[in-house]
Amino acid sequence: MNSNNDYGDDHKKQASFWFETFRDDLCKALEACEDDVTGPNPTSAAANGRFERTAWRREEDANGGDHGGAIGGGGVMAVLRGRVFEKAGVNVSTVFGEFSEEFRDRIPGARDDPRYWASGVSVVIHPHSPLVPTAHMNTRMIVTTQGWFGGGGDLTPVFPVDADTADFHAAYQDACDKYDESYHPKFKKWCDDYFYLPHRGEARGVGGIFYDNLNSGDWNTDFAFTQDVGRAFLDAYPIIARRHMDKDWTDAQRHAQLVKRGRYVEFNLLYDRGTTFGLKTGGNTEAILMSMPPEVLWP
Amino acid sequence: MNSNNDYGDDHKKQASFWFETFRDDLCKALEACEDDVTGPNPTSAAANGRFERTAWRREEDANGGDHGGAIGGGGVMAVLRGRVFEKAGVNVSTVFGEFSEEFRDRIPGARDDPRYWASGVSVVIHPHSPLVPTAHMNTRMIVTTQGWFGGGGDLTPVFPVDADTADFHAAYQDACDKYDESYHPKFKKWCDDYFYLPHRGEARGVGGIFYDNLNSGDWNTDFAFTQDVGRAFLDAYPIIARRHMDKDWTDAQRHAQLVKRGRYVEFNLLYDRGTTFGLKTGGNTEAILMSMPPEVLWP
Repeated sequence: MNSNNDYGDDHKKQASFWFETFRDDLCKALEACEDDVTGPNPTSAAANGRFERTAWRREEDANGGDHGGAIGGGGVMAVLRGRVFEKAGVNVSTVFGEFSEEFRDRIPGARDDPRYWASGVSVVIHPHSPLVPTAHMNTRMIVTTQGWFGGGGDLTPVFPVDADTADFHAAYQDACDKYDESYHPKFKKWCDDYFYLPHRGEARGVGGIFYDNLNSGDWNTDFAFTQDVGRAFLDAYPIIARRHMDKDWTDAQRHAQLVKRGRYVEFNLLYDRGTTFGLKTGGNTEAILMSMPPEVLWP
Repeated sequence: MNSNNDYGDDHKKQASFWFETFRDDLCKALEACEDDVTGPNPTSAAANGRFERTAWRREEDANGGDHGGAIGGGGVMAVLRGRVFEKAGVNVSTVFGEFSEEFRDRIPGARDDPRYWASGVSVVIHPHSPLVPTAHMNTRMIVTTQGWFGGGGDLTPVFPVDADTADFHAAYQDACDKYDESYHPKFKKWCDDYFYLPHRGEARGVGGIFYDNLNSGDWNTDFAFTQDVGRAFLDAYPIIARRHMDKDWTDAQRHAQLVKRGRYVEFNLLYDRGTTFGLKTGGNTEAILMSMPPEVLWP
């Protein structure tokens, strides 16, 4: 199943290019919310938010350095600090290297040949308003001696609204059902299982989908699916944000949001594989920890 | 070396009792700072801070439940939310159980018999003022088929002051040198190595001491040393806090403090063994995460 015959240079380029295109589209959609908001302005800034981009390179080190494996590549982090979105981070990266001994048994296809290539886009959005849900999405293509796609998205409202939850899940269900009717139930459960804080006995939010190691044997179909998963987020999230972004909120609601954000931090630093993997394999710390909420309370 | 001949019931009682006595003394010393402060009052509360205590029990489960090992015992968490100390948490706990498979190879003496007993006191102090250093201390006695003491303390100023750093280290050096002149250099380095954030390339603070698996073969001496390590913190920290607690601070200094606290959160959730161990072995989540700073920024 997971042969990498289809995971050659042309397909790597196509995937990387699409992750960048998606990033551009998503940044525009979030900036359009900034343009259109008429609700409370909790910032001191007169202008509405715009993404600022910073390119970064991984330190190339053929000998592996501290991380025990040669690494290279880089990416672009884009951050918007605006009026609707207190902090929205969108990272694209394309990196390559060799897994250190610690990871070789855990990553499919890395035991015999530790070299890898990985490209993806990841997004974390922390709105000012406690009425606008926090959201995360990510899609990626990974190549070792095997090759696969992974990704998904999940919604973390402070005060869940049934219509938002239903619309978010419906967008992913539509994307999934076009490919395989088993995908949505399976990937929705995977999301629920993954974004869970056992030490709190709490889900991180209201879920979405999560998938990994997807290789159906047809690269074109899996890539098309991954694109549709991205587009589902792009279609669904701005509509949900716009529903609530012009509403007033109370200090008590804001307080509840800042406490809820603490759970987000706990999940990302204690359990999130992307975060811990990235930090332990010489990833760009600023880009990885852009997922941290801008202001948090543990009262 | 690490036989547990000396780690029987009488010594367990003596150690547990001392951890509680130390907790009482430290709470009084911090409350005295609250009584004496004349500087800025950033709180809405008229009264100065007092510790509030909450007892907790671990759910006894002979079958091990989710954590894969029988557990029992409990503790008392004490929290002060005051005018000098925005959040100070002091926990004492005495717990017992069986290590799950995951931990048996990592804990001395747990391979053949997974039962353990552990008692200790841990303290994390987050002052309001960015001029008063954040501080942490912990001492503990652990019994498996072996027995040992561990502990230490470290100081995390936002704006390090040489005299504070020198006094803090001197207090620990005095405590150490009474027992073994090799202790202080060794335990100071252990602290520097331990409280380090590799993903930031930064130390957590200005250090202190850290030791673990201490069993010299003489329980009485090791227990006396552990008490002196506690007293060193009790002597040194309130003096340092009092030096700065009446000074005004600026918004820029406060902002720097809230960002620095983000590093504290990153350390505790990504690397701190006590935190991750506690959360994964069915520890009391509220008590463990009392170490989280009350307000944090990742701007």
